[in-house]
Amino acid sequence: MKMTKAVRSILANYESDNPGTKANLARILMQGALGGTGKLVILPVDQGFEHGPARSFAPNPPAYDPHYHYQLAIDAGLSAYAAPLGMLEAGADTFAGQIPTILKVNSSNSWASGANQALTGGVDDALRLGCSAIGFTIYPGSDDCFEMMEEIKDMSAEAKSVGIATVIWSYPRGANMPKSGELALDVGAYAAHMAALLGAHIIKVKLPGDHVEQKDAQKPYEGIDGSSQAKRVAHVVEAAFNGRRIVVFSGGAKKGADSVYQDARDIRDGGGNGSIIGRNTFQRPRAEAMDMLARIIRIYKGRE
Amino acid sequence: MKMTKAVRSILANYESDNPGTKANLARILMQGALGGTGKLVILPVDQGFEHGPARSFAPNPPAYDPHYHYQLAIDAGLSAYAAPLGMLEAGADTFAGQIPTILKVNSSNSWASGANQALTGGVDDALRLGCSAIGFTIYPGSDDCFEMMEEIKDMSAEAKSVGIATVIWSYPRGANMPKSGELALDVGAYAAHMAALLGAHIIKVKLPGDHVEQKDAQKPYEGIDGSSQAKRVAHVVEAAFNGRRIVVFSGGAKKGADSVYQDARDIRDGGGNGSIIGRNTFQRPRAEAMDMLARIIRIYKGRE
Amino acid sequence: MKMTKAVRSILANYESDNPGTKANLARILMQGALGGTGKLVILPVDQGFEHGPARSFAPNPPAYDPHYHYQLAIDAGLSAYAAPLGMLEAGADTFAGQIPTILKVNSSNSWASGANQALTGGVDDALRLGCSAIGFTIYPGSDDCFEMMEEIKDMSAEAKSVGIATVIWSYPRGANMPKSGELALDVGAYAAHMAALLGAHIIKVKLPGDHVEQKDAQKPYEGIDGSSQAKRVAHVVEAAFNGRRIVVFSGGAKKGADSVYQDARDIRDGGGNGSIIGRNTFQRPRAEAMDMLARIIRIYKGRE
Amino acid sequence: MKMTKAVRSILANYESDNPGTKANLARILMQGALGGTGKLVILPVDQGFEHGPARSFAPNPPAYDPHYHYQLAIDAGLSAYAAPLGMLEAGADTFAGQIPTILKVNSSNSWASGANQALTGGVDDALRLGCSAIGFTIYPGSDDCFEMMEEIKDMSAEAKSVGIATVIWSYPRGANMPKSGELALDVGAYAAHMAALLGAHIIKVKLPGDHVEQKDAQKPYEGIDGSSQAKRVAHVVEAAFNGRRIVVFSGGAKKGADSVYQDARDIRDGGGNGSIIGRNTFQRPRAEAMDMLARIIRIYKGRE
Amino acid sequence: MKMTKAVRSILANYESDNPGTKANLARILMQGALGGTGKLVILPVDQGFEHGPARSFAPNPPAYDPHYHYQLAIDAGLSAYAAPLGMLEAGADTFAGQIPTILKVNSSNSWASGANQALTGGVDDALRLGCSAIGFTIYPGSDDCFEMMEEIKDMSAEAKSVGIATVIWSYPRGANMPKSGELALDVGAYAAHMAALLGAHIIKVKLPGDHVEQKDAQKPYEGIDGSSQAKRVAHVVEAAFNGRRIVVFSGGAKKGADSVYQDARDIRDGGGNGSIIGRNTFQRPRAEAMDMLARIIRIYKGRE
Repeated sequence: MKMTKAVRSILANYESDNPGTKANLARILMQGALGGTGKLVILPVDQGFEHGPARSFAPNPPAYDPHYHYQLAIDAGLSAYAAPLGMLEAGADTFAGQIPTILKVNSSNSWASGANQALTGGVDDALRLGCSAIGFTIYPGSDDCFEMMEEIKDMSAEAKSVGIATVIWSYPRGANMPKSGELALDVGAYAAHMAALLGAHIIKVKLPGDHVEQKDAQKPYEGIDGSSQAKRVAHVVEAAFNGRRIVVFSGGAKKGADSVYQDARDIRDGGGNGSIIGRNTFQRPRAEAMDMLARIIRIYKGRE
Repeated sequence: MKMTKAVRSILANYESDNPGTKANLARILMQGALGGTGKLVILPVDQGFEHGPARSFAPNPPAYDPHYHYQLAIDAGLSAYAAPLGMLEAGADTFAGQIPTILKVNSSNSWASGANQALTGGVDDALRLGCSAIGFTIYPGSDDCFEMMEEIKDMSAEAKSVGIATVIWSYPRGANMPKSGELALDVGAYAAHMAALLGAHIIKVKLPGDHVEQKDAQKPYEGIDGSSQAKRVAHVVEAAFNGRRIVVFSGGAKKGADSVYQDARDIRDGGGNGSIIGRNTFQRPRAEAMDMLARIIRIYKGRE
Repeated sequence: MKMTKAVRSILANYESDNPGTKANLARILMQGALGGTGKLVILPVDQGFEHGPARSFAPNPPAYDPHYHYQLAIDAGLSAYAAPLGMLEAGADTFAGQIPTILKVNSSNSWASGANQALTGGVDDALRLGCSAIGFTIYPGSDDCFEMMEEIKDMSAEAKSVGIATVIWSYPRGANMPKSGELALDVGAYAAHMAALLGAHIIKVKLPGDHVEQKDAQKPYEGIDGSSQAKRVAHVVEAAFNGRRIVVFSGGAKKGADSVYQDARDIRDGGGNGSIIGRNTFQRPRAEAMDMLARIIRIYKGRE
Repeated sequence: MKMTKAVRSILANYESDNPGTKANLARILMQGALGGTGKLVILPVDQGFEHGPARSFAPNPPAYDPHYHYQLAIDAGLSAYAAPLGMLEAGADTFAGQIPTILKVNSSNSWASGANQALTGGVDDALRLGCSAIGFTIYPGSDDCFEMMEEIKDMSAEAKSVGIATVIWSYPRGANMPKSGELALDVGAYAAHMAALLGAHIIKVKLPGDHVEQKDAQKPYEGIDGSSQAKRVAHVVEAAFNGRRIVVFSGGAKKGADSVYQDARDIRDGGGNGSIIGRNTFQRPRAEAMDMLARIIRIYKGRE
Repeated sequence: MKMTKAVRSILANYESDNPGTKANLARILMQGALGGTGKLVILPVDQGFEHGPARSFAPNPPAYDPHYHYQLAIDAGLSAYAAPLGMLEAGADTFAGQIPTILKVNSSNSWASGANQALTGGVDDALRLGCSAIGFTIYPGSDDCFEMMEEIKDMSAEAKSVGIATVIWSYPRGANMPKSGELALDVGAYAAHMAALLGAHIIKVKLPGDHVEQKDAQKPYEGIDGSSQAKRVAHVVEAAFNGRRIVVFSGGAKKGADSVYQDARDIRDGGGNGSIIGRNTFQRPRAEAMDMLARIIRIYKGRE
């Protein structure tokens, strides 16, 4: 693994981390078809916890099998594969050392009463399963947001001490967050900023729209150009320590392929680090998903 | 670092503390342009957590970069730089040993439903990042005030045992505190007193007005002269163990420069130890902020 | 310190305690002008937490300084000095070994919504500050009373294991306690009894009136003579394990000197162990307070 | 990293190991020019501890610099780099993620009186430095051999629980081992077997001669063909669980290049997994070492 | 403390350390008259433990007082002061924050039977006393050398995790080290190398002579020029990771001032980082010691 200048420059931003954590970040950044470019595409498969198996996998039944996702991520040349405990356990031996994995350590489900998640994995699990990172969701706007922050504070400190990286999914949601705010530009930038302040190495947020939700934010946003998606991405990246933290954007629910490609182009043009794209790939037939991922990778390489 | 008489005299007040904690207090008091005077100016950058990145940094976009604040605090000759975990991590190696840092270990955000904060850092983080102190906010008047006090009780005891100082932000706020009380003289003095009772080494409060909020406090305040801001500062200092604890005053939202200077003069004349001034500096262009800080330092030195 | 028979006899009642805890009780009982008599007068200064600094100290401004109280207690020949964490820390070194101290480990404040207190100190703090005891308030009648009892259960067990004594302030108050009950005879005796049951070494209660509050208690109280304050004190002492636990009575808000002296005589004549007297002394000018304390001591010595 | 059949087949032998440990073994087996072949070449630089810096590095002075060895191992396409704590610390950040590292956790030196080694690193160090394995020497035949075995028992168990692999250097030596036995065939096979029994993932032994040392072993060895070095390698591999454990052979002191190549051919032909080759490379000028390593790699690839 | 390029460049070598440890190294490197130059002079006062008080302090009786040494180190503008537990405790409060201190955590004495030292301090002591580093002696050549190495392995790992630096005194001595070897060039370089391998941040060795002790080292040393003391210093620095670790040289027993100055010049010219000089200063009258230290500092600044 000859380190590229692009990756070196990203790693240098993680200046308080030990070499163990940097090695795991490097593994993700040097993996697959985008290895060395500073861009990354992550496959997350945690929708089964949140929406149930049939809503997640019935559109493409082979995806019920945990091995399917490992194999898809590897064959498509992705950067990492993220999933909850059992999903990783079911393939961790077969695919050991073939692709960096991210243990999603908290999860919600369809009957959760509030906007919160259960802790469903630990740093010790990540070590025994050979994961490069833990993944954790916070819900800014939830009544339980403080509790979630305190959980990741503890887990991230433990992870950093043993060389495991931290990925924070920062998803505005909950009793104090109007529906209209979840995809607002100001809220998305704020969500990314909070993840960075909490010490995340990699930040996952949704692609925001151009709406500004918070009353107090109207004025500062007068001078911020959110007219195109690429510009909105650039603003989120700025909010994540001016590019000193890796930011990836999620694809959301399954949608048309062209829309997926346009998102990737906008993330690239706005200076985002890449995509974390689940349902849009594993809910399609494998051949179609492979094509789509190949094209996304070409986009991140600047070839279309 | 030849210790001055002014600093020795302040350190002598922290009579139950171990030499490790005193050494960290000494580092803050001997740092920068005010080093040795017993006065201090601290740069706090935790507004991104509370108000979001754009409201905090859009007025001066270079401030999105965590290095910007370290450099500003060092170049302006300030006494210390305070920020949440991720913000410090992003510069802790580059600026190691160049300025004392304060790890803000709890933080609120714009969607918090009550007056409380999430724990977002720990004493172990402070040690690995080389911080001189932890910073913690309490909200007297909040339903969660007891919980916050119990959190800082534990963290402060741990910090004191390993030589880390404690700064308490004491901000009256919450369901049991009328809006009119937040800046009342009696409430401000009480807030400072509670921080002292909780064992804070450095107390951060807002500059209070001349209003007396509590009914039961009307009578005792008949004999207390709160007619000028300097006299109100003096009363708060008296309430903080009669000057035995360092008290710094926050600047609040961005405002006119003359008002900032007048505040500094009043703090100085009332016997306060200095300013903790964030938005009024980092939201201005750097050159302007440097000028403002230079002038504040001159004021604390008694030169204007 | 030659041990007197009176003190030996008191110490013998703490028969399950280790010698470390007994040594600390002995220090309190052998200290000052009442040393050896089995009587004691304690100076408590925790009103700043509960009522704020100005309401507490403005009547006698030198009392803003933590050293003032240590010095007053020592110069007046008192038995012990009780205060919250920061107040003790600010003088613990200067006055180390000069007077037994009691670390008040929980505290309320003027904006607390219910009848509860925050934990603001710990047994480890008591050890490092050289305290002889921890002090803890319970509110029988409060919704949070069980939580408070559970807190002191844990802290007292920890304290006993390291030779620190426990003082319980037992103050009926809260949603389940009618105002009329707070000073009722049956309630006061009950409060003292619960403190004894919780394992307190020293019990602090208010001087009760002759009213019987509880319906179910009317009958048993028919045969109890509560017609004089001394008799009521005797009943409370009886309720505290028939004199096997030290009981001290609090003075309440500042009042006329004669009333204070009469209280002391009644406590003495009823077999109480002494007074815990704060505002009635530190809110008076020092010379006046010294005179008052001298006279109280003479009363406890049976000289007036 | 597409896993090859050769590597899959090796990993399958480590059937009780968790995926974390297997991922680290996979990293070593998939690294560099031999990645995927099931063969490996490891660079060990611990001779400075055992023989001193000048005896180790004076023949090629750039090798005094710890970065030299990282770079050599990476540029030559080796499988892993093994060194003691300080040596790894001095380059772990610069080369994070570029090559698997093995933390040598015990070390001897030229003045050690018996055949033993000091523990000089731990599993926690391995985690923070991002190492894939710990390396540990045992001296079968030493008076301290049981102590050494008990040390690796503990460390290896800890390492396995957190996904770190174990490499055992098994070197017959000590008061109970005649000099003639150190390179004997029966002893070498026995040494490899004991390392396997102790739970090593990778076993490092010396290339044995054809001498049979133990009296009791003469008879069984009558039927074992040790007439060529390749056959002796095959016997050692057989002794290491019939090929179920990775066995690498050490190169010993610097010697002629042809002899080094012949060793590699014999290891390959005997079914050994590769070489661990230190002095023969880093004591040569870099260009010469690069050529030698390139040729060794070609040999293991079966190309010469 | 504006960081100089020289110090930045030294700190960059400690690439696996957390910012806390780097901040403490920075404090030493930025302290006193040599602050910022990359050179340092440390005052060690541990001879009382090893030789007794009179042999140490009778030549200059004010040196019996622990404050004497703190004050000397501060007034002379030294970089740090190193001493055992009690010696530091006796001045740690008075001089808190005035000079970096190094807690010597092991010590021998005149009646020790072998070449070993007792552990006499811990990392927790270093934290509560505000020390920047721990200091530890190893005796290469001693029967107990492994035990010593294992002690510092554990203490150094703990220290690194809480931001405390490690200084290793590496003094060849003991049953397996001939007297002639203690100051041999090969042995001194080897001693420095082992300290570096053990993870020391600062290495303290004696100035070696030109004798080569080890038989096996004769050949490699043929090509090493040890004809002048400066060249021997250069060789030791090379052995300490080619200059990637700070190396300071000890002054040994009291000797003539000219000899002390020549040593400093040789250390400087050979690229050493400075002197650790005890008896040669504190056994002289203070004025004389101050003059000597001033001159040594001028030498390190290249002014004589």
